[in-house]
Amino acid sequence: MLVHERAVRFEEIDAAGIVFFPRFLNYCHDAMEALFAPLDGGYVRLVTERHIGLPTVHVEADYRSPLRYGDVARIEVTIPHVGSRSFTLHYRFARAADGLPVAEVKHIVATTDLTAMRAVPIPNDVRAVLERHRAPPS
Amino acid sequence: MLVHERAVRFEEIDAAGIVFFPRFLNYCHDAMEALFAPLDGGYVRLVTERHIGLPTVHVEADYRSPLRYGDVARIEVTIPHVGSRSFTLHYRFARAADGLPVAEVKHIVATTDLTAMRAVPIPNDVRAVLERHRAPPS
Amino acid sequence: MLVHERAVRFEEIDAAGIVFFPRFLNYCHDAMEALFAPLDGGYVRLVTERHIGLPTVHVEADYRSPLRYGDVARIEVTIPHVGSRSFTLHYRFARAADGLPVAEVKHIVATTDLTAMRAVPIPNDVRAVLERHRAPPS
Amino acid sequence: MLVHERAVRFEEIDAAGIVFFPRFLNYCHDAMEALFAPLDGGYVRLVTERHIGLPTVHVEADYRSPLRYGDVARIEVTIPHVGSRSFTLHYRFARAADGLPVAEVKHIVATTDLTAMRAVPIPNDVRAVLERHRAPPS
Repeated sequence: MLVHERAVRFEEIDAAGIVFFPRFLNYCHDAMEALFAPLDGGYVRLVTERHIGLPTVHVEADYRSPLRYGDVARIEVTIPHVGSRSFTLHYRFARAADGLPVAEVKHIVATTDLTAMRAVPIPNDVRAVLERHRAPPS
Repeated sequence: MLVHERAVRFEEIDAAGIVFFPRFLNYCHDAMEALFAPLDGGYVRLVTERHIGLPTVHVEADYRSPLRYGDVARIEVTIPHVGSRSFTLHYRFARAADGLPVAEVKHIVATTDLTAMRAVPIPNDVRAVLERHRAPPS
Repeated sequence: MLVHERAVRFEEIDAAGIVFFPRFLNYCHDAMEALFAPLDGGYVRLVTERHIGLPTVHVEADYRSPLRYGDVARIEVTIPHVGSRSFTLHYRFARAADGLPVAEVKHIVATTDLTAMRAVPIPNDVRAVLERHRAPPS
Repeated sequence: MLVHERAVRFEEIDAAGIVFFPRFLNYCHDAMEALFAPLDGGYVRLVTERHIGLPTVHVEADYRSPLRYGDVARIEVTIPHVGSRSFTLHYRFARAADGLPVAEVKHIVATTDLTAMRAVPIPNDVRAVLERHRAPPS
């Protein structure tokens, strides 16, 4: 399990005064990048030099409590499933200050050759990172 | 069914060269606002004067094909379910130029008193708009 | 002079309840894209096929009055100066409902080969569009 | 002088493959928030509890070199001028890896009562923070 913390940013608030719901998926992407930091060159090199990306094929999110400016999101990431060309990430969001449950997201991505835009087998170093965090949803 | 078209914007592209996946939910919110344009004062007045918002409680998205800069998304919105304090929207995304299926999103929102942050019964005028688009997913 | 209108979007509000100040430059970019719509294939083709972009080299903005959710920005675009490899755009923002002055932006961009990231002479069709809107700041 | 480092985020790239120019101002806002971290409750409490905000009245930016995904921006913040109800921030951007000059931004903000949307004298604790970083542009 990776734990990723991120403060709500000033501009992530919507006209209803809470974090705009799509931005939770931005937070997931941040957490996913943090997960792949151990790769040589990190997620950046995977995308920009190896031209392998992780386009989303499916996402499911349950929102329990809003986040506001001033909150810090605490995100626990686990990998409940690894296939041959795709894998599943699970993110559990809580408010860092008091542990209030905020949201849960299930996220399936496909390892994809960004030039051909075609799914490819999960590279070995990516798989190794995934195995390290392999666990049912926290 | 409401049909909402929206061009991909220059800044909606990510480092992999495609529309960043969370932004599909921004597009959904745009389409939802368009759906509620017939309300007196539209979605804006609902939020800013009546202090009723539509926070998301659940979202499920399937991504089939990426969108790129230059594409126009054609989004068909239907309302498959209306409850007492929440309702479901369904969005079918296609690429406007050729009808290529792009994504499908199921989106459940709760009519919420934004001051108390508590679910409230769906107001009558909101319900009337929903009934007009009531249909199974297109 | 081109006139471009754009409603404030739900997610463009910041934690202070007004349009986040950097987003005024997003509005400028939208207006600039609208200005270049008469090009064959528009701004999209300029960037994606001809690989010519318009990176900003200088921007100056004066903010007079905030925009809020529910406002529509009315943006008047003129071209006060055209050089050999760069040109200046001027944007005057007003609130569409009542004409309240909102902001003024001066924006200098360089016609740039995006592959080499090097300034290139302004293409003839781009120059023709600019000449059509050539005028001192409105 | 405050030094603030921030990695370019995956979704900050535009269709031309570089950081979208308005986002440099987002980076400035981040750096400004970091500057005010020493306030009791930080910038968050200033805005959300004391209802004092720092709307921008003027901004000037010079862009010298683009930022790309994978770059880290190193931002040096100084305060060249403090008035009675407004002050000036100066941000010097470089690419952290090699010090390449990237941009310079001059940013004038007014201490503002967010309820009345009226400029107010700079609070003493805010002024104390500003004095600590008082210096001509770095």
